[in-house]
Amino acid sequence: MRLNELGEGALIRRIRDRFQSAEVILGIGDDAALLELPPGHSIVYCSDLMAEDTHFTRALNPPDSIGYKAVAVNVSDVGAMGGIPMHFVISLAAPGDLELDWVDGFYSGVQQACRDFSVSLVGGDTSSAKSIFVDVAMLGRVRTGTAVRRSGARVGDSIYVTGALGASMRGLRLLHSGDTSDPSLKRHLYPTPRHRVGAAVAARAHAMIDVSDGLSSDLSHIVTESAVSAKIYQDQLPAAEGASELEVLHGGEEYELVIVAPELPGEIEGTPITRIGEIVQSADEHCVVLIDGAVESVLHPQGWDHYSG
Amino acid sequence: MRLNELGEGALIRRIRDRFQSAEVILGIGDDAALLELPPGHSIVYCSDLMAEDTHFTRALNPPDSIGYKAVAVNVSDVGAMGGIPMHFVISLAAPGDLELDWVDGFYSGVQQACRDFSVSLVGGDTSSAKSIFVDVAMLGRVRTGTAVRRSGARVGDSIYVTGALGASMRGLRLLHSGDTSDPSLKRHLYPTPRHRVGAAVAARAHAMIDVSDGLSSDLSHIVTESAVSAKIYQDQLPAAEGASELEVLHGGEEYELVIVAPELPGEIEGTPITRIGEIVQSADEHCVVLIDGAVESVLHPQGWDHYSG
Repeated sequence: MRLNELGEGALIRRIRDRFQSAEVILGIGDDAALLELPPGHSIVYCSDLMAEDTHFTRALNPPDSIGYKAVAVNVSDVGAMGGIPMHFVISLAAPGDLELDWVDGFYSGVQQACRDFSVSLVGGDTSSAKSIFVDVAMLGRVRTGTAVRRSGARVGDSIYVTGALGASMRGLRLLHSGDTSDPSLKRHLYPTPRHRVGAAVAARAHAMIDVSDGLSSDLSHIVTESAVSAKIYQDQLPAAEGASELEVLHGGEEYELVIVAPELPGEIEGTPITRIGEIVQSADEHCVVLIDGAVESVLHPQGWDHYSG
Repeated sequence: MRLNELGEGALIRRIRDRFQSAEVILGIGDDAALLELPPGHSIVYCSDLMAEDTHFTRALNPPDSIGYKAVAVNVSDVGAMGGIPMHFVISLAAPGDLELDWVDGFYSGVQQACRDFSVSLVGGDTSSAKSIFVDVAMLGRVRTGTAVRRSGARVGDSIYVTGALGASMRGLRLLHSGDTSDPSLKRHLYPTPRHRVGAAVAARAHAMIDVSDGLSSDLSHIVTESAVSAKIYQDQLPAAEGASELEVLHGGEEYELVIVAPELPGEIEGTPITRIGEIVQSADEHCVVLIDGAVESVLHPQGWDHYSG
């Protein structure tokens, strides 16, 4: 069956029957959802879109991976503020002749993400369009005054990174080469956001960002916003298995956290935490310096720009 | 200049420089925005998307009208819950070769909507895509316990509608026919949500919905969700100037409110309020009955389905 045979009303009922949540006062099906915020908390709010043939292709990316990832990347953004993700809305635009199997697969991925990250779908919108377009807007909560911004890094702080880097870009390369057996493929298709680590370090961290554009780009955001510089050590960077130097330094969509803090343990919430460098005073400009043995070089952002190249 | 010459970072800075808000703790430019909710309130949350060639065309719809409308329709949804709209995120996907003039026009419309509706842009996402796609997710607040759902209509209640109906569908028809002088065109391109009326009647209304799919469809949602039926009177329906019977009964994107309440005055917040019928007990099924002189007929939903016809 295709979407235009099912119709919009039936599609919305189908989605509503699938997603239920006890914490939600009123979810899918009215003009808007009604939600509670516990006292003493602020709202953390973000959105992230995925467009066909920019972020994924129908030929290569399984539909459930697109639903899963659309939720995961927003969970990651809330976590990078030290927040706890709660509720989200999804807008899905798709051609009317799209097979319902694709749509069901997509929402299976969304549902799996709801279970894995303890978040709930509370509304959204559907429409026809020439190509597939997915947008998720996520609400989270953070104890008022404890949100971790990009701008708080101080000279003398250590720089940490969760997990390992480079698997997602390597996975993307393998996906395009047709090698679907390597585990790094799963890291690219079904990323694991580190929101539980983010929430756990909120009281201790001075600055935080998730690696969505690549370590070089995302760490540059921190040094620019904090008006400091950073030194990182090539031999300290936690590389995912098989990942190249380029993939570790510049690979995007990793959804690991870069955490700037005075001191962190080697493991938080079961996730390895690696010290990769320190925050230093800026000389001429705010930059990231990569130290490789005796060689120091400025690491320029080489992450992803959706409108270039 | 085109989007791919400007680049994504410069585009985000350009948007950030344009949108500032005093009520926002942290807006555009970090992983997520940070927002406050006043004590005693619940969150009202919704999203609405607009896809090129489904909701608008580049040839016919001025870019500022697309930005304006994307915000207005979400303001309308929050208002239809009796809520006060506050903050929103926008995701914009567009081809890299799109002229920057279009993007600037789009954000001018967004800015005008922020002024007109007292809401603020706090974040979002941008990406390239084959066609233009706009998604807005809006946060509002409502005093806890006072939100107005679709399901609360009771037998004996009156049915009211704000403003007049049919202008938007008429405007759409004129837009396609090339007649750009008629005032109903403006109603279609730059809709006026009735959120201030919605918030004003929250304590008194039993059920409420905004006319986004057409009176026949949207009133059907209320009777279905409330398990009642409705009688409406053809000669009581407030028709916009020049609007046909079909446009009044079935025209979508009106963004007037259908309010079910025991009694309302003839004007609220400067907006005319017209009594169009009453809630009655359901016989066999929950339906809307249209009374035209001595003739009674069941009014079937004939509103818009994005995947049909």
